[in-house]
Amino acid sequence: MTQPVPMAELWRADLLESRHLGHAVICDDSGQIVQAWGDPEALIYPRSSCKMIQALPLITSGAAAKYGLTSERLALACASHNGAEIHTSRVRAWLQDLGMGDSDFRCGPQMPDDRDARYALIRGYEAPCQYHNNCSGKHCGFLTLAQHMGAGPEYVEIDHPVQRAVREAFEEVTGEASPGYGIDGCSAPNFQTTLHGLARAMAWFASAGDRSDRQSMAAQQLTAAMVAHPDLVAGEGRACTELMRAMEGRVAVKTGAEAVFVAIIPEKRMGIAVKIADGATRASECAIATILSGLGVLDPDHPATVRRITAPQLNRRDVEVGQIRPAAALLSR
Amino acid sequence: MTQPVPMAELWRADLLESRHLGHAVICDDSGQIVQAWGDPEALIYPRSSCKMIQALPLITSGAAAKYGLTSERLALACASHNGAEIHTSRVRAWLQDLGMGDSDFRCGPQMPDDRDARYALIRGYEAPCQYHNNCSGKHCGFLTLAQHMGAGPEYVEIDHPVQRAVREAFEEVTGEASPGYGIDGCSAPNFQTTLHGLARAMAWFASAGDRSDRQSMAAQQLTAAMVAHPDLVAGEGRACTELMRAMEGRVAVKTGAEAVFVAIIPEKRMGIAVKIADGATRASECAIATILSGLGVLDPDHPATVRRITAPQLNRRDVEVGQIRPAAALLSR
Repeated sequence: MTQPVPMAELWRADLLESRHLGHAVICDDSGQIVQAWGDPEALIYPRSSCKMIQALPLITSGAAAKYGLTSERLALACASHNGAEIHTSRVRAWLQDLGMGDSDFRCGPQMPDDRDARYALIRGYEAPCQYHNNCSGKHCGFLTLAQHMGAGPEYVEIDHPVQRAVREAFEEVTGEASPGYGIDGCSAPNFQTTLHGLARAMAWFASAGDRSDRQSMAAQQLTAAMVAHPDLVAGEGRACTELMRAMEGRVAVKTGAEAVFVAIIPEKRMGIAVKIADGATRASECAIATILSGLGVLDPDHPATVRRITAPQLNRRDVEVGQIRPAAALLSR
Repeated sequence: MTQPVPMAELWRADLLESRHLGHAVICDDSGQIVQAWGDPEALIYPRSSCKMIQALPLITSGAAAKYGLTSERLALACASHNGAEIHTSRVRAWLQDLGMGDSDFRCGPQMPDDRDARYALIRGYEAPCQYHNNCSGKHCGFLTLAQHMGAGPEYVEIDHPVQRAVREAFEEVTGEASPGYGIDGCSAPNFQTTLHGLARAMAWFASAGDRSDRQSMAAQQLTAAMVAHPDLVAGEGRACTELMRAMEGRVAVKTGAEAVFVAIIPEKRMGIAVKIADGATRASECAIATILSGLGVLDPDHPATVRRITAPQLNRRDVEVGQIRPAAALLSR
């Protein structure tokens, strides 16, 4: 097995203080590797980076059309959101349209990352609800599909029709039989794949416009929804939102816990998948921004890019005392 | 240069999801390495793990005696505290005794980690003060020393008498000329050392009771203060506090940012220093607890130990879906 390679570094004055190793793959629409760092066959959990795959059955089943899901709702189905008002108001409206309530969720409650929403809860002595969970949009998608299928309420169980449909779509687009699964932070199964498989799936999304099969048309809709609503996919200040805005609708990107990051680049028919071996998000953000810049689809001088590629480390008086930098291997193309 | 070795792993179901590499050294009181993992000569920033070294001049200068500093205040000088009421009330009283106020600090404001203190600020629409900064006890020590010396107010400048005294003590106990420094999150200089130098310093603290020189007597006082007040050194729920309580006053431990962890073991005249290469605290906590257990000074079955060595990863419904585990290399002694 190829070892992970240096991807991002934290410098403080003249000393390399910490270093992140990882794997990355750029794949084309034939499933071939265009470029790889580390081990493209490393087995990973994609975590939230595969939400657009998990949302495919919502469309291919006919549920999205029947329930009239807008592109906002499709973006939320692919989101790891901040729990801000713009997210939770839309999730609650979706739940209401399903005739359901917060207790129908199986994702668990989560304190919002959004500062205004969090402070409002704390000031009101309120506990967070399940709709605040960063995955509540994905779970709305699961609930919609379950209702459409007439399936039972325990939609995160591995043998529930919703998760069986997700697994089938996942294996189809990664081009691999998934060897196993783990349980994600939101209680849904998360299927294992190689990094190559995940990049292949992203390239398949990127080239979906070339095809007219049901699954590819669903992929086109989801990618379009993500790039149309970068604020719904993550939130203010977040890498996914800022990088998608910087690329002005040309590229979809998505983060996942434990430092996974993917990109869908329709104009190049390419997909990217990154996994930092130690699970540090500061490094996966640096790596994906560096690779996207190297491919010429992300302006290296855009403030959103600069913030990820050379993220300043501030002290408590807001003076820069260190800096994240991409490792040399990522820059040499 | 020896590469870092596996130290801690995150498992989710049957798959190793993330892995942390690092360096560790156990040193005896002659400065010799008893056992090492990775590269003992790796150059690091000790960050907050060296606060007991930074506090030495406070005592050797005669300031601590003149100002009648209690063991509580000496523990706070070595602390990275949570900003809870037990910490901030004591820091404010210390400031008041100096005839000083919050604006004399140079550490910058920080929202407290302590939930009650944080929620109280948010509910009161108040911004955090500098005394909430996790380093405010160390800065009280700096202010006390500066006042004792009759030195100026900019006590975090590299050429200020306080920092010159800190550097002198640092180089003496690490046994190395420090090749450089960076600026810490609290704006104080943080001097570079090898991991071996840091472990040597901790062994020097551990054996201080064997010697009666001024510096060694100061070291004894600081170690005694830390183990007497584990709640002041960090806070409820924190690894330093819980592990020191579990070892019932026999061992002092201290964390530092970017995954440094040290231990002072007087009964063995040994010191330990750990640095996780990627800066992940979950891994440094796992590593230090594993090494202390291996040395027989920390009960492997104590809940505080178990929480660090095999830290459960819970989903949002509080079900365990993953686990931190020490890497095999750390267990094979």
